[in-house]
Amino acid sequence: MDIILCGTKSDWFCDNLSKSLNIKSLKVFHKVFPDGETYIRVPEEVSGKKVILAHSLSPPQNDSIWELILILEALRELDIKEINGYIPYVAYSRQDKIFLNGEPISIKALLQILSQMGMSSIYTIDIHKPNTLSYFNGTSYNIIPFKSMANMIRNMAKHPFVISPDIGALERARRLANELSTDFDYMEKKRDVYTGKIEISFHEVNLKDRDVVIVDDIISTGGTVAEAAKKIYSLGAKKVFVAVSHALLAGDAINKLKEANVYSVLSANTLPPKSGVIYYDVIPELAEILKQ
Amino acid sequence: MDIILCGTKSDWFCDNLSKSLNIKSLKVFHKVFPDGETYIRVPEEVSGKKVILAHSLSPPQNDSIWELILILEALRELDIKEINGYIPYVAYSRQDKIFLNGEPISIKALLQILSQMGMSSIYTIDIHKPNTLSYFNGTSYNIIPFKSMANMIRNMAKHPFVISPDIGALERARRLANELSTDFDYMEKKRDVYTGKIEISFHEVNLKDRDVVIVDDIISTGGTVAEAAKKIYSLGAKKVFVAVSHALLAGDAINKLKEANVYSVLSANTLPPKSGVIYYDVIPELAEILKQ
Repeated sequence: MDIILCGTKSDWFCDNLSKSLNIKSLKVFHKVFPDGETYIRVPEEVSGKKVILAHSLSPPQNDSIWELILILEALRELDIKEINGYIPYVAYSRQDKIFLNGEPISIKALLQILSQMGMSSIYTIDIHKPNTLSYFNGTSYNIIPFKSMANMIRNMAKHPFVISPDIGALERARRLANELSTDFDYMEKKRDVYTGKIEISFHEVNLKDRDVVIVDDIISTGGTVAEAAKKIYSLGAKKVFVAVSHALLAGDAINKLKEANVYSVLSANTLPPKSGVIYYDVIPELAEILKQ
Repeated sequence: MDIILCGTKSDWFCDNLSKSLNIKSLKVFHKVFPDGETYIRVPEEVSGKKVILAHSLSPPQNDSIWELILILEALRELDIKEINGYIPYVAYSRQDKIFLNGEPISIKALLQILSQMGMSSIYTIDIHKPNTLSYFNGTSYNIIPFKSMANMIRNMAKHPFVISPDIGALERARRLANELSTDFDYMEKKRDVYTGKIEISFHEVNLKDRDVVIVDDIISTGGTVAEAAKKIYSLGAKKVFVAVSHALLAGDAINKLKEANVYSVLSANTLPPKSGVIYYDVIPELAEILKQ
């Protein structure tokens, strides 16, 4: 790779990425016209280069997506050797199947557009369903930052117990527990079909005086996790941690977690930093793969 | 055509379109998740049909574009015979060439994506540069609503004089003047390279006691038009009208026009209605072409 092109949504990790990879970075110029249209311009210097295009699809997601499309369009007009996307957070990754006829597979539209527009490889952090990367017509790398996550937990929690919010994410709990050489389980979640309220229960596990880590890929509204934390404390746990790859924390999520006495929210640095979250850095794990 | 599918940005003209064409319309269901992602669903009933997909790319443009992409993705999953887009306002149509290296031709990216995603024809109202429609890989129709515009002006202005804000738009003034059987000209616009201020001047025309119509395709911030209106009044004009196809009216544009004593702002109904604008209906001109 010759150069890093930092997209409009990369401010919080661009310099760090440049230093870790020891590759020069340039920034995309960006402004918004009075009528709301986005204007972007990429530095000419990227011509003829193998580019790492770094840009997260953070909220507001639709703006981030369109800005990425405009950057790819601008690069098409220059003579670029290779465009390798580092897209730490891929929006719409949870819209990955049709539940009701007439719905789009939004992640499919997104990934197909990116490859059609000249992105030849994509590096991402912990995409919701790794098999959706097959919609991307090129090479894809999905980095699940268990190592960085475990390193941080080791510094903060004592003999932690790892728990996933549902059976679907059990493998995640197993792998993190493995890194931490500890035990793990999942919660049972039942949604009341009438009230929509979520009922959480646990298997026969002894959480008394344990530090408990709830692990998931994304935390959005924080509703389920807050309920789970309360329940875990009621079973005698000492501290409840939340460890995720992507801290979306929509609306008043962070307050919900505080009210539930969540001790710390740990997240990878894939989205713009929010107060109340402790971030662990995934760039070293990306750098390792990029250097291969 | 069998059915009209009204996109998320068509509320203000959907019923009218359905009545004028005498074709049933269905609406796309739309909501926004707490984290900011858009969810859309198209009614299954469109399966197997020749569809008119009606959706304007109104501000916030990036949301409107992404919603259209999701609708096209949803339609791909159903068995649609034909997708004909009625996109009255095409955002990014003014980003149609590269002024500085590293810029995108944004309108190219947009139109290519729409055709790649299965839109086979596009009907639009007065796109900024008609030749950009060649980026759309399908049939395209650009409807310039001189007739509807002229009808409305005829009801409001007496023996109007038509003027375009620059020589580039002179043909537009000529054609509207032709519909109105009256005279026309263009203004000279000079931008001070240091202050950015626009200096407007007129040729040897007698505007004394005339109703003057400033005609353009888009009115955005209204700055130039407000300056022009003041100048036109200073030359003795009776009333100044502004007639456009697309009334974007960003920020405090409408106040600027009021302060300049603009008598009326007339616009086609291509964008969501704003107070202070009188709208003329372009659906009859669309219907005429669709029925051919």
